[in-house]
Amino acid sequence: MHRFGILGTGRIGQMHAGLVAQQPDATVSWCYDVDPVRAAATAEMVGARPAEHVDDVLADDSVDAVLIASPTNTHVELILRSAAAGKPILCEKPIDVDLAKVEQCRLALAIYDVPVQLGFNRRFDPSHRGVHDAVRAGQIGALELLIITSRDPGPPPPRAILEACGGLFRDTTIHDFDMARFVLEDEPVEVYAMASNLVDPVFAALNDVDTAVVVMRTASGALCHINNSRRTNYGYDQRVEAFGADGLVRSNNLRRSEVTRYDAGATAAREPLLHFFIERYRDAYEAEIRDFIDCLRTGRPPSVTFEDGRRALILAEAALQSVRENRAVTIQYDAAVAA
Amino acid sequence: MHRFGILGTGRIGQMHAGLVAQQPDATVSWCYDVDPVRAAATAEMVGARPAEHVDDVLADDSVDAVLIASPTNTHVELILRSAAAGKPILCEKPIDVDLAKVEQCRLALAIYDVPVQLGFNRRFDPSHRGVHDAVRAGQIGALELLIITSRDPGPPPPRAILEACGGLFRDTTIHDFDMARFVLEDEPVEVYAMASNLVDPVFAALNDVDTAVVVMRTASGALCHINNSRRTNYGYDQRVEAFGADGLVRSNNLRRSEVTRYDAGATAAREPLLHFFIERYRDAYEAEIRDFIDCLRTGRPPSVTFEDGRRALILAEAALQSVRENRAVTIQYDAAVAA
Amino acid sequence: MHRFGILGTGRIGQMHAGLVAQQPDATVSWCYDVDPVRAAATAEMVGARPAEHVDDVLADDSVDAVLIASPTNTHVELILRSAAAGKPILCEKPIDVDLAKVEQCRLALAIYDVPVQLGFNRRFDPSHRGVHDAVRAGQIGALELLIITSRDPGPPPPRAILEACGGLFRDTTIHDFDMARFVLEDEPVEVYAMASNLVDPVFAALNDVDTAVVVMRTASGALCHINNSRRTNYGYDQRVEAFGADGLVRSNNLRRSEVTRYDAGATAAREPLLHFFIERYRDAYEAEIRDFIDCLRTGRPPSVTFEDGRRALILAEAALQSVRENRAVTIQYDAAVAA
Amino acid sequence: MHRFGILGTGRIGQMHAGLVAQQPDATVSWCYDVDPVRAAATAEMVGARPAEHVDDVLADDSVDAVLIASPTNTHVELILRSAAAGKPILCEKPIDVDLAKVEQCRLALAIYDVPVQLGFNRRFDPSHRGVHDAVRAGQIGALELLIITSRDPGPPPPRAILEACGGLFRDTTIHDFDMARFVLEDEPVEVYAMASNLVDPVFAALNDVDTAVVVMRTASGALCHINNSRRTNYGYDQRVEAFGADGLVRSNNLRRSEVTRYDAGATAAREPLLHFFIERYRDAYEAEIRDFIDCLRTGRPPSVTFEDGRRALILAEAALQSVRENRAVTIQYDAAVAA
Repeated sequence: MHRFGILGTGRIGQMHAGLVAQQPDATVSWCYDVDPVRAAATAEMVGARPAEHVDDVLADDSVDAVLIASPTNTHVELILRSAAAGKPILCEKPIDVDLAKVEQCRLALAIYDVPVQLGFNRRFDPSHRGVHDAVRAGQIGALELLIITSRDPGPPPPRAILEACGGLFRDTTIHDFDMARFVLEDEPVEVYAMASNLVDPVFAALNDVDTAVVVMRTASGALCHINNSRRTNYGYDQRVEAFGADGLVRSNNLRRSEVTRYDAGATAAREPLLHFFIERYRDAYEAEIRDFIDCLRTGRPPSVTFEDGRRALILAEAALQSVRENRAVTIQYDAAVAA
Repeated sequence: MHRFGILGTGRIGQMHAGLVAQQPDATVSWCYDVDPVRAAATAEMVGARPAEHVDDVLADDSVDAVLIASPTNTHVELILRSAAAGKPILCEKPIDVDLAKVEQCRLALAIYDVPVQLGFNRRFDPSHRGVHDAVRAGQIGALELLIITSRDPGPPPPRAILEACGGLFRDTTIHDFDMARFVLEDEPVEVYAMASNLVDPVFAALNDVDTAVVVMRTASGALCHINNSRRTNYGYDQRVEAFGADGLVRSNNLRRSEVTRYDAGATAAREPLLHFFIERYRDAYEAEIRDFIDCLRTGRPPSVTFEDGRRALILAEAALQSVRENRAVTIQYDAAVAA
Repeated sequence: MHRFGILGTGRIGQMHAGLVAQQPDATVSWCYDVDPVRAAATAEMVGARPAEHVDDVLADDSVDAVLIASPTNTHVELILRSAAAGKPILCEKPIDVDLAKVEQCRLALAIYDVPVQLGFNRRFDPSHRGVHDAVRAGQIGALELLIITSRDPGPPPPRAILEACGGLFRDTTIHDFDMARFVLEDEPVEVYAMASNLVDPVFAALNDVDTAVVVMRTASGALCHINNSRRTNYGYDQRVEAFGADGLVRSNNLRRSEVTRYDAGATAAREPLLHFFIERYRDAYEAEIRDFIDCLRTGRPPSVTFEDGRRALILAEAALQSVRENRAVTIQYDAAVAA
Repeated sequence: MHRFGILGTGRIGQMHAGLVAQQPDATVSWCYDVDPVRAAATAEMVGARPAEHVDDVLADDSVDAVLIASPTNTHVELILRSAAAGKPILCEKPIDVDLAKVEQCRLALAIYDVPVQLGFNRRFDPSHRGVHDAVRAGQIGALELLIITSRDPGPPPPRAILEACGGLFRDTTIHDFDMARFVLEDEPVEVYAMASNLVDPVFAALNDVDTAVVVMRTASGALCHINNSRRTNYGYDQRVEAFGADGLVRSNNLRRSEVTRYDAGATAAREPLLHFFIERYRDAYEAEIRDFIDCLRTGRPPSVTFEDGRRALILAEAALQSVRENRAVTIQYDAAVAA
């Protein structure tokens, strides 16, 4: 039985706690949150103890792992404290919105022998993973074009969340950058991005954007396109299309049921897409936890690493720079190290 | 250049005339109709002469073939007169709604060496034919279940047409009986039908039905289901599904375009199906004419025969009898000959 | 916390036990099976006690409900013993394959005030339920045609299971009869069935059939068709199509993911359907248990009743009689009571 | 009856001639080609006279219009000679691959009062037009993202054609630039393109590319993405997706039939897409000719203008410049005029 401490019990932390508690070989021991009421509520839901301090969790030798789902700007501190306590870590993305802090974290982590798994949950979605697996199995030959559509349902998140999230590229597109790296056969080396404010004035007010298109090139010449919006009215639009010499493989959207309707106005009509990440990626989040438990159990390294988190952030930074300077930005993953 | 006489220039005769005229190797010489105004209109449309009498057409040695699209109760007479004149015949379905008349026609035709092709246009639909071809190619192994959905768009045809059409089974289901015979690997030997009046009082007033389900068995034990309605509000619903030991092949409905829409109410919504047979089977009607021209050109026998028309009618009669007697009816194609 | 006793821990009992154990407000107290090794295995899996005798479960006052998933021929006895012990019952379908025993059970149950829910899991499938809900909400107007496709993946079940199952109509089609009753707006009053042996000689050897088509009529004239096969090679084919005056609503098949593939051989190709009921109806089984727990919690009557189980069996018997006598069979639900 | 002269009877000229000849109100009078054998073949096919010289056509007063389908580098000359002869012009795209020549042509044309329609056939495709119409009807609210997928089937065209075509952007993407302008609500003002050589060495040998991604921004901030490849193995991949505040509308690919197949390897599999433009856009080409005939008949201006051809070429040039300089290029439609 793997005993988890949950650090951060907002919406996504609560979901993670529930999923951990459902695993036959895992249990939640502690729930911590800056808001003790929230910590207590989740703790009660999953039969765990509420923690007053993070150290209640980290100092407990019976805790086998921590799951960090606190606000992004606390990730680095919690990662390092957990690592110092020798606890394997499953941390929500992004590591941080400040690449310099991520670099410091990376250097600091080097002295600990603690597995850190980054929460790029979409890698565990059966459909997106199906695209990845088909590409790796050579079913489409060499991958030449990768098209990622990733649009959130409206309305926009509350302003407080938007202020802290680091903006569209670091908060949302970062998932797509990771998906691109997951499916592509070699690393993106060049990024160009265009962005607009079309959805809601709050984004411009925060010096953020709400609609974007990105193109990238890998060293081998494969091309990737990502498009994002902060608002659809038909649900969470999440598609990945990989095109190659021998064919095409695509992952499409999910709905709650397989009902179609025909009437005088429309035919083959279906219900809206699953609303948002909690619904669409529920199975992916569970598979992510299963994967992490498998690391705990076998000692194998995580399948999504701190370095994956860092590289996705480097791409997000490059996209931001591209928008600012209106030019393509060359990626140097190592130069970033030196920064 | 194959010169056609068109006998009957109502809606479907006019369509046939137009399609013949479009063929690079065919032309319409004469158009005949009991209504001379109608004959003249179609004749002008296709650059043909209007015929005052059927014999204007049949006595013209330069006429290579006739296309009979007159009211059903005139088919037998026109078939026999055309055959006597030595003209190859493409005749709309059904041959007649009276099986006894069909038998007489069959016997009378035996003395002429004239090709007669029956207008079961659906055999030429690329999608339904695709199902037939897949079955014949062994792609689904032995055919075990055949499911035919065939529903007309509402509102019902005018009462005068309904009165003359012979009722649902002889007018509409007859197409499905022919489709069943086209796709099945052996002949239906037993038919059971249930029918209702759900759509419009006119059907009951005419002692007809408007909604029906049919099941059939072939000698080898393959089972077939047909369902019909005289009214949909989403277009012409025409599907054929063949299921066998090694898989399933299906032909689906057609629309004018490949547009899909997503909004807050529905996703993946498409436009209504093509409205009715003129739209849905336009390509099939043209392919039917091409096939007949190919018979004229090569002298090979028609691919859809008088006997096909007779057997579909025998199945329709059996369905009627099944409804009347509420029991399964055994088919004897030869006994019918004797009748 | 609702404490369950599981009676019967074969494949489906084990699945039920696991689902009960996952509910936050339910737990499995006891697992009983004629095979104590099997009982012990499931008990260990869900943290319950293995029961040596059924009475270990029924005599335990702390047990709030029983879930009967034992062989069909033990259902009636276990229902009656559980009812006598005052335990609410969730019982797998069918009640029994012998209608006379079902009648006796019904009469005997009358003296107990114990809720009995029948395990027609498909009523809880989000897609089929979506069809039901759309019909009840009037979205398609009056229901005129109901088409149910229901085909099991091959190969056939082991001979021992086939011997005990009561044959295709009582074992498999019974689900479709219940689905028909669930979606139709009034009761079927007439049944006609045709059946064949096309799949595997084992069925003929057992005097059973493996492929069937059924048609039914309700009192109001709505027509229903069911088609069954004991073997597909593409997964579990489960579709329901309701057609009415104002449109059509359909529930389609499910797959593990939303991946499509395009290559030189095929486009838009998807993976096989979910394999069988355990996979396809996993969510439905869980919703069924949730619904039963809701009955326990609120005291409301079950949404799927013993009478539903009895009526579905009456339809199955009528289908069998129809095949034997090759005629339509009129249903008399009350006459069955008298039998 | 509108009498056409066809200038250029290669593959596409021959197709145009055939379509003109099929119109009930149009006929082909003359066919000209540099290769007199080719001219004669097409002339015979459509019952026209073969022209030895272009002037045979232009000097014939009975000719109502010319259709220019000759090699691209002859378009400008033929446009100007036809205009001088007072003949309305339907000219295949692109006007020329040299923007300076296009400017000269534009200035020269100003003195003639002759309608010139550019052959952007895709605007007449019922599916793409359906997207345009839905956007214009406000069905998706303000258009925010436009995603165009446009990939040709392999193998690449013959080297001689590639040499003359002006490269991927001027030859192929130009259609997508026009589609973008057709669907977008305001003009693109900025273009960025990335391109690769992944398909065939012939492209690199010609200093051309074979795979590309483009992003564009309009004045109002709408964003557009185009992706191209010179080779698919599943047919001609032509999709347009318009996303806006109130929903999404998409045009999907076409196939010859609506057949789907299910077997042990795949489900819902369909046949390859229609092979290439001749098959996919057959109806569009016909609608384009109908539209041009409507201009001839009514005197209204063409719906696709010389200026449309010029602007699409300006975008193609900008994409080329973007690739060369690896930066976004600002579009100045008027500056181009001055050039």
